[in-house]
This record gives sequence, structure tokens and C-alpha cells, in this order.
Amino acid sequence: MISTPRSGCPVNRALEVLGDRWTLIILRDIAAYGRRGFRELLNANDEGISAPVLSRRLTDLTEAGLLTKVESSRGKQGRYSLTELGIRTVPVMVELARFGAVFDPQAAGQLPSFLQQGGDFASRLDELRQEHLGEDAPASAG
Amino acid sequence: MISTPRSGCPVNRALEVLGDRWTLIILRDIAAYGRRGFRELLNANDEGISAPVLSRRLTDLTEAGLLTKVESSRGKQGRYSLTELGIRTVPVMVELARFGAVFDPQAAGQLPSFLQQGGDFASRLDELRQEHLGEDAPASAG
Repeated sequence: MISTPRSGCPVNRALEVLGDRWTLIILRDIAAYGRRGFRELLNANDEGISAPVLSRRLTDLTEAGLLTKVESSRGKQGRYSLTELGIRTVPVMVELARFGAVFDPQAAGQLPSFLQQGGDFASRLDELRQEHLGEDAPASAG
Repeated sequence: MISTPRSGCPVNRALEVLGDRWTLIILRDIAAYGRRGFRELLNANDEGISAPVLSRRLTDLTEAGLLTKVESSRGKQGRYSLTELGIRTVPVMVELARFGAVFDPQAAGQLPSFLQQGGDFASRLDELRQEHLGEDAPASAG
């Protein structure tokens, strides 16, 4: 995934990491549904992601600094955590969801509750930081 | 591009239309730089889009209802306009740009001024409506 940027525009730089049909689906499953292991991400995914696509994207996202992977001992599966950079994709998901609900009104009612804006959205991002960054979590990031 | 949705989640529905490395680049060029014709979109693009990719995406976006194309008379090129649905992708671009500037701090200074938030962002969207929707423009859409 690491290659020469097509341009220095930040929209482009974001699309070079996030611009495909699966990457933000995986990040949604981790952020909004708390799925952290490969099998859970594979089996619970509503869009029917395949194992090779999931595997490749998890590797890419880890290399790009959006995820970290903690290998488990005793032959157990590794567990993925969002980094601060990974958490910064949540507002992108929220705007995609708003667009998706206009594009397909039938989809409007199926937004994961985590991605619903309003009220304590910022504090939910901070909860995500506590959960995924643990002691590395900044008190608050704007 | 029209096929059975992978799921009814609005994040997914958005990615089925916007989730690739080129679609939002083209929409950025139309929205932020006012490029409206095929040649201009091809030749001025900073990311080096190819003619076949541009042609295919413009057709897809027109079929999906994000763009309209007005054919010109006298052999002149057609001109693309954003629909209201197309204009609704601008907040997605803005959040992608915010992520892109965190992902690649060197990109932070290269945001098209149109996509900079703050102040009169809503009124700039309304200007886009006037410019692209003309007399069909709603007074304001939230």
C-alpha cells in the first residue's frame, strides 16, 4: 500500500489509505461494533467480506498506522486495536453514513448507534480512545 | 455500478457509490475547482487520472444520480453539474481532508480553499447549489 502519493492534496492522501469498498467497512466493524479478532471480523461482517480481503486490509491498515495488532499467547488469535489515527476515521464514517442515508433512504434506519451524531459524540470518541489506546489515550483530542 | 447492495448499512451504501480511489477525486475537482468538462477534468487533474477511468466514473456518477450531463450543441463538449445528491458528498470530502492532514501533515497546507471549514461553509454549499442546480436550487437544505 505504501507508494508515491499521487498528489499532496489531503483528500487524495486520505483516499490513498481509505479509498476502496472494504477498508472503512472493517474500521466500522472495529469502531462501532467492537470486533477485534480476525474470526469475529470475518464471521460477523454483514457485507460478506472474504478472508483474503480482510487479511490484506488488516495488514495494510496496520502498516499505515491505523491499527495495531497484539499477538496473543497460547495460540490464541491476535487482537486489533485502533490507533489515534484509526479513531480519526470515525468522523469520515459519520459523514459517509449521512450521505448513504440520503442516497438510499431505506438505509437511514440502519445506522450503527455508535455513529449517530449529537449529544455526547465527542465523549464516545474518548471512550473509544480509552478502550483501544488504553494508557496511551490522550485526555482529549480535537 | 448498480447491483444488489452488500448490506443496508448507510456507511456501506455510501461506499458502494464513493468507495474507490478516484470517485471523490473527480467530485472534488468539480466541486472545489469548478471543472465541468471532460477535457478540463482530465488535463487539470493533479492525480493523473486516465481518460478511461474518468469516462467510466462520470458515467457511473451520472447513473447513480450524483451528476447530470448537459450535452452541448455544435459539437462542443458536454458539461457536468452536481445534483443535490452530489453536493451532499462535500462534507465527506471535508472529513477525508481532515483525516488526510493528520495522516500526512505535509498535505495539511494543500487543502483546496473551498473545502476549508468554518465561517460561511454552509453558504458556500448554497453557492454550489446556485451554480450547479440553477433554478432547481432549494433555498437551503440542511
